[in-house]
Amino acid sequence: MAGYQAPLPDIHFVLRELAGIDQVAQLPGYEEASVDVIEAILDEAAKFAAGVLAPLNRSGDREGIRWQDANGGSVTMPAGFKEAYAQFAEAGWNGLSCDQAFGGQGLPRLVGTVVQEMWMAANLSFSLCPLLTAGAIDALHLCGLPAQQACYLPNMVSGKWTGTMNITEPQAGSDLAAIRSRAVPQSDGTYHIFGQKIFITFGDHDMAENIVHLVLARTPDAPPGVKGISLFVVPKFLVNADGSLGARNDAYCVSIEHKLGIHACPTCVMTFGDAGQGAVGTLVGEENAGIRYMFIMMNAARFCVGLQGLGLSERVYQQALGFARERVQGRDIAGGENSVAIINHPDVRRMLMLMKSQTEAMRALAFVVAAAQDAALRHANADERHRKQSFVDLMTPIVKGWLSETCNEIAYLGVQVHGGMGFIEETGVAQYMRDARITTIYEGTTGIQAQDLIGRKVARDGGMAIRALFAEMRVCEAALRAISADDTFSAIAAALDQGITAAERAVDYIVSGYAENVRAAAAGSVPFLRLMGIVCGGWQMSRAALAAQLRIDSGNTDPFYPAKIVTARFYADHVLSAVEGLAHTVIHGGAGVLGLDEEQF
Amino acid sequence: MAGYQAPLPDIHFVLRELAGIDQVAQLPGYEEASVDVIEAILDEAAKFAAGVLAPLNRSGDREGIRWQDANGGSVTMPAGFKEAYAQFAEAGWNGLSCDQAFGGQGLPRLVGTVVQEMWMAANLSFSLCPLLTAGAIDALHLCGLPAQQACYLPNMVSGKWTGTMNITEPQAGSDLAAIRSRAVPQSDGTYHIFGQKIFITFGDHDMAENIVHLVLARTPDAPPGVKGISLFVVPKFLVNADGSLGARNDAYCVSIEHKLGIHACPTCVMTFGDAGQGAVGTLVGEENAGIRYMFIMMNAARFCVGLQGLGLSERVYQQALGFARERVQGRDIAGGENSVAIINHPDVRRMLMLMKSQTEAMRALAFVVAAAQDAALRHANADERHRKQSFVDLMTPIVKGWLSETCNEIAYLGVQVHGGMGFIEETGVAQYMRDARITTIYEGTTGIQAQDLIGRKVARDGGMAIRALFAEMRVCEAALRAISADDTFSAIAAALDQGITAAERAVDYIVSGYAENVRAAAAGSVPFLRLMGIVCGGWQMSRAALAAQLRIDSGNTDPFYPAKIVTARFYADHVLSAVEGLAHTVIHGGAGVLGLDEEQF
Repeated sequence: MAGYQAPLPDIHFVLRELAGIDQVAQLPGYEEASVDVIEAILDEAAKFAAGVLAPLNRSGDREGIRWQDANGGSVTMPAGFKEAYAQFAEAGWNGLSCDQAFGGQGLPRLVGTVVQEMWMAANLSFSLCPLLTAGAIDALHLCGLPAQQACYLPNMVSGKWTGTMNITEPQAGSDLAAIRSRAVPQSDGTYHIFGQKIFITFGDHDMAENIVHLVLARTPDAPPGVKGISLFVVPKFLVNADGSLGARNDAYCVSIEHKLGIHACPTCVMTFGDAGQGAVGTLVGEENAGIRYMFIMMNAARFCVGLQGLGLSERVYQQALGFARERVQGRDIAGGENSVAIINHPDVRRMLMLMKSQTEAMRALAFVVAAAQDAALRHANADERHRKQSFVDLMTPIVKGWLSETCNEIAYLGVQVHGGMGFIEETGVAQYMRDARITTIYEGTTGIQAQDLIGRKVARDGGMAIRALFAEMRVCEAALRAISADDTFSAIAAALDQGITAAERAVDYIVSGYAENVRAAAAGSVPFLRLMGIVCGGWQMSRAALAAQLRIDSGNTDPFYPAKIVTARFYADHVLSAVEGLAHTVIHGGAGVLGLDEEQF
Repeated sequence: MAGYQAPLPDIHFVLRELAGIDQVAQLPGYEEASVDVIEAILDEAAKFAAGVLAPLNRSGDREGIRWQDANGGSVTMPAGFKEAYAQFAEAGWNGLSCDQAFGGQGLPRLVGTVVQEMWMAANLSFSLCPLLTAGAIDALHLCGLPAQQACYLPNMVSGKWTGTMNITEPQAGSDLAAIRSRAVPQSDGTYHIFGQKIFITFGDHDMAENIVHLVLARTPDAPPGVKGISLFVVPKFLVNADGSLGARNDAYCVSIEHKLGIHACPTCVMTFGDAGQGAVGTLVGEENAGIRYMFIMMNAARFCVGLQGLGLSERVYQQALGFARERVQGRDIAGGENSVAIINHPDVRRMLMLMKSQTEAMRALAFVVAAAQDAALRHANADERHRKQSFVDLMTPIVKGWLSETCNEIAYLGVQVHGGMGFIEETGVAQYMRDARITTIYEGTTGIQAQDLIGRKVARDGGMAIRALFAEMRVCEAALRAISADDTFSAIAAALDQGITAAERAVDYIVSGYAENVRAAAAGSVPFLRLMGIVCGGWQMSRAALAAQLRIDSGNTDPFYPAKIVTARFYADHVLSAVEGLAHTVIHGGAGVLGLDEEQF
C-alpha cells in the first residue's frame, strides 16, 4: 500500500501562478505571512501529514470506533489517534487560521486551505475533528458573547478542547425547519436543552478533555419553521469561573453509526437532557437567529467538504499511480514480447489522466476560491471585497458539489486501476471509495447545493455574478487563442469556448426558467452544477497551461510545465467534451424528469 | 429495508415486444417451451427470488463467510444459504437451460437469462454459485469426453455438485499467458496438478457434497504463452467407478479474501497438489486448447456479469423508490406549506428516472441479445445463425462493459437518494454499491472488454458487423420520425439520430485508427464502449416507445405504456445526450492520454 506525499510541486505552482499567494500575503492583517514563511509552513505540514496522519488511515479504518455503554456512553478512538491528536495540537496546527487574539496564528485562509487538503488526503476521519472544531470556533468568534469567547475560544484554538455542530435530527435532515430540540430558559440566564441529534461527527471521543457542542434548538415561544431556531453552546463538561472543568453535562453519545466509510470518525447519536433536568447551555447571539449563524459555519463547512474531495482524489491518484508503475501484466498493445507495467496500457493511462487532470483542476479552483475568501475579508477596497464575496458565494456550491462528486468518480477509477486487487480491502484503495461516498451527502447533498446554485446564486441576481465570471473566462480564452499556431492551445481554446458557450446557454435557461417553471429548472440543477464545475475547472486548467507556457518561453526546462500543458489538453478532450450534452440536459431534460405520475414509477 | 419483487410487467413487455419470445419458442428444439409455460416458470422464479433468496441478501452480507483451518481449509456459508441452495436444486432451477440428456430442462437461453436477472437481483452472492456451475457444465458439455460427461454432468445439472473456474494466479490476472500451474501426465492417463489459483469464486463451500474444479495448467512440454495452456477437470472428491465419492483430492481452499462486497460469496485462494503428490485431474478436450475452451465459458460468463449489473440495478432502484415514496422531507419547490415525500423533489425524481430508464434499457438490450443467442444456436437457417452469432459476438463486450459500469452509477445514485441514511450500513443500500463494484472487474475488466470490442469485434471485420447494426437502428429511427407530429417522438428520434451518427463517426475512426495508431485507438476504447452501450440502449428504448405507442393506438389504457414513452424521452435527453462528447473523446482524445512520459505522472 502506497503512503502519501503532499503534492508540493503542484501546490506551489497553483499558489504562485493561479491563486496569487503574493497578493494574499500583502492583504491587511497578513503582513507577517511572507511567501517564504508560508512555504516553510507547508513543508512542515507535508511532513506531519505523511509521517503522523497517513500511517493511521488504514489502521483506523480497520479498527474503527468502539462505543461503550459506560458513563452514559463513551467513545474510544482507534489506536494512535489520541497521540496523533496531541501532537497535532502541540504543533499548533489547530489554530493556523484562527484569530491571534485567542492564540491562533492568523494566517490566510488560503494557507489553511492548502494544509487542510493535506490533512484530508492523509486521514479523512482524523481531519474531521479539527474541521468541526474550526466551525465551532468561527460561530463563537462571529456570534458569541465576549464571556463565551473567553470561556471557550482559547482552549478550542489550542486544540485542548474540540467542537461539534449538532444540527440533524431523525426527522430533520435536509429540512432544518423540522428541528424539534427544545431550549428552556432558566432564571440564571442559562437554558436547559432537551432533544436527540443524529449524525454528529466527533460528538464524543477520547482525544480531548472537553467537547464544545453547538446545538440548534427551539425556545418555548419560538415561531415555527427555520425562523424559530436558536443556537446554543453546550459543553460536555461545564466550565467553572476559573476555567477549570466542572460537572459532567447531560449531553451523551448513546450510540454510534455503522457506516460504509470514515470508520475512524465517530458519528454519534447524541441525547441532550435525557436524565430529566436538561443539558445546560447558553444562547449564542440572538434568539431565533440560529439558522443564519449556522449558515455562516455551513458555508465554510461546504467549502471544506470540497477540499475533502480534493484530498481524497490526490490520495487515490497516488495509490493508483504507484500500483500502475509496479504491476507488470500483459504486453504493449503496439507489440513487443515482454510483459510491461500496466501504466503502459493506454486505458490505464487514460484512467490515471482522468484522475490527475481533474485533481489538478479541482486544486486550482479550490485555491483560487480560498484566495478570494481572503480578499473578501481583508482587501482594503470595499468594492473589491464585495466583488470577491460575490464570487465566493457563487463558487461555494460548485466547489462542494463538483469536487465531492468528482472525487467519487476518481476513487472508483482508483479501484479499477487495481483490477481484482482493488476489490480486496487489504489493498487499501477500496477504503477511499467508501470514505468518498459521504462527501456528496453531508453538509447538504449535491441536490441541495444545486438548488442553492440555481436559486440564490444564479436566478436571484438575474445571472449577474455568473456572467461576470464568464467574462473573466473569455479573457482567458482570448489568451489561449493568441497562441493559435499551436495545435494543443487551439484545442484547449476550442474546448473552453464550447464550455463557456454551453454554460451561458444553460444560465439563460435557468434565469428565465426559474421564474416560469421552477420545477423544470430544478430538474436540471445537478447537471447544471456539474456543467459549471467542469467549465470552472477548464478555466483553471487553461490558466495553468498559459502560465506553464510562459515559463517554458522564458527558458525553464522543468518537465512539470510541458506536463501541465498536456494535462490541460487531456482535460479539454476528456472532461470539457461533456459540456454540450450537459447543457442539452439542463435545457431540455425537464419533460422527461417530470413526465410520470408518482404511481407510474 | 425494501424487499425485492421481480419486475414482471417490464419483463413480459420486453420478452413479447422486443425480444420476440414467440419466435424463440418456435426454434427447433424449444417446441416444448410455449409462451404460456415460460410465463408460468417466470412467475415461480419470481416467487423463489422474493421469498427465499432476497431475505438472505442482507444477512449474508453481514455474517459473511467463515474459513477454518480444519481439514486443510474449509468454508462455511452464512446462515440459511445451505438450506436455500437445497431448495434451489430441489426445485430444478439449476438445470433450467441445460441439456435434457443430462437431466436439464432444455429451455431457451432467453428464459434462463430472465431467471438469472431475478437470482442476481435477489442475492448476487448466492447467484454466483449456480453461475459458475453453469460455466463448468458448458465446458464439459462442449469439450469433455463422454466418460467425463457421464461422471460429472448429471450431478452438476441437478445441483448436487457445483463447479468452479480456476484461471487467475497471482501473476496472471488479465494476462493469461503468465499462467504457471503445472499438470504432470501419469501412466494411468490422469494428470497430477500443482499450483496456486486466486480469486476462485465458490472454490469451497458447504452447500454441495462435491465441487468440480475446471483448472487451467501447463503440461511439461507445452509451448510458452496462451498456446500452451490446457484445461483439466479436478474434483474436490474423486469419483469412484460406481459414481460414489472416493478420496479427498489435494485441492484445498487455503484462505479467503476480505472483500469490499459480495461478502456471502467465498472468494478462495486454492492450492492444488500442495501435499506433494499432485491433485488428480483429467484433461478436458485437446492438450494446449485450454484457452479456447475457457473463452467459450468466458463469453457466457461475461454476458452473465452484464446480467448481474441489470439485476443489481433493478434491486437498487426498487429500494430507492421505496425510500423516496416514504421519506417525508422538505416542501415542494413550487410552493406549499406541507412537507412532502422526497419523490416530489425534481432532483430525486431525476435520479430515480436515471435509475429506471437505464435499467429498462439494459434489460431490453440483454434480453434481445439472449434471444439472438438462442437463434444463433438453433435457427433452421445457417445464414441466420451466422448473422445472429456475429451480433452476439459484437454485443458481448458491450453487455458486459456497459451494464456493469452503469450498475455502479445506479448503485451510487441509490445511496444518494437515501441521503445520510444511505451511508449507514443498516439501511442496506450501501451493500449494493459495494457488491456492484466487482462487476466491472471480474471476467475481464472494462478495459479488457473495450479492447476486445475495438479489436476483434470492430476493426477485424473492418466495421462490417457494427455497421449492419447501425442500419437496423436507422430503420427504428425512421419509424420514430413517422410519428413526427408528436414532440416526444421527435425528440427521441433526434437523440437516436445523433447517437447513431456519433457512433458511426467513432467507428470510422476506430477502423482506420486501429491500423494506423493502435495506441491512440485503444486510448478511446472505453469511451467508445460506453458510447455504444448508450446508443444500443437508446435503440432499445426507441423500439420500446414505438411498441408502447402501438398498444396505446389500439386502445390499451394500461398506464405502463405512456410511462414507457416518457421513460424513453428521459433516456434521450439525459443519457443519449452524452454521445457527441464521447465521440469527440474517442476521436480526439489520444493525444492527451499518450502525451506524458511515465516520469511526468
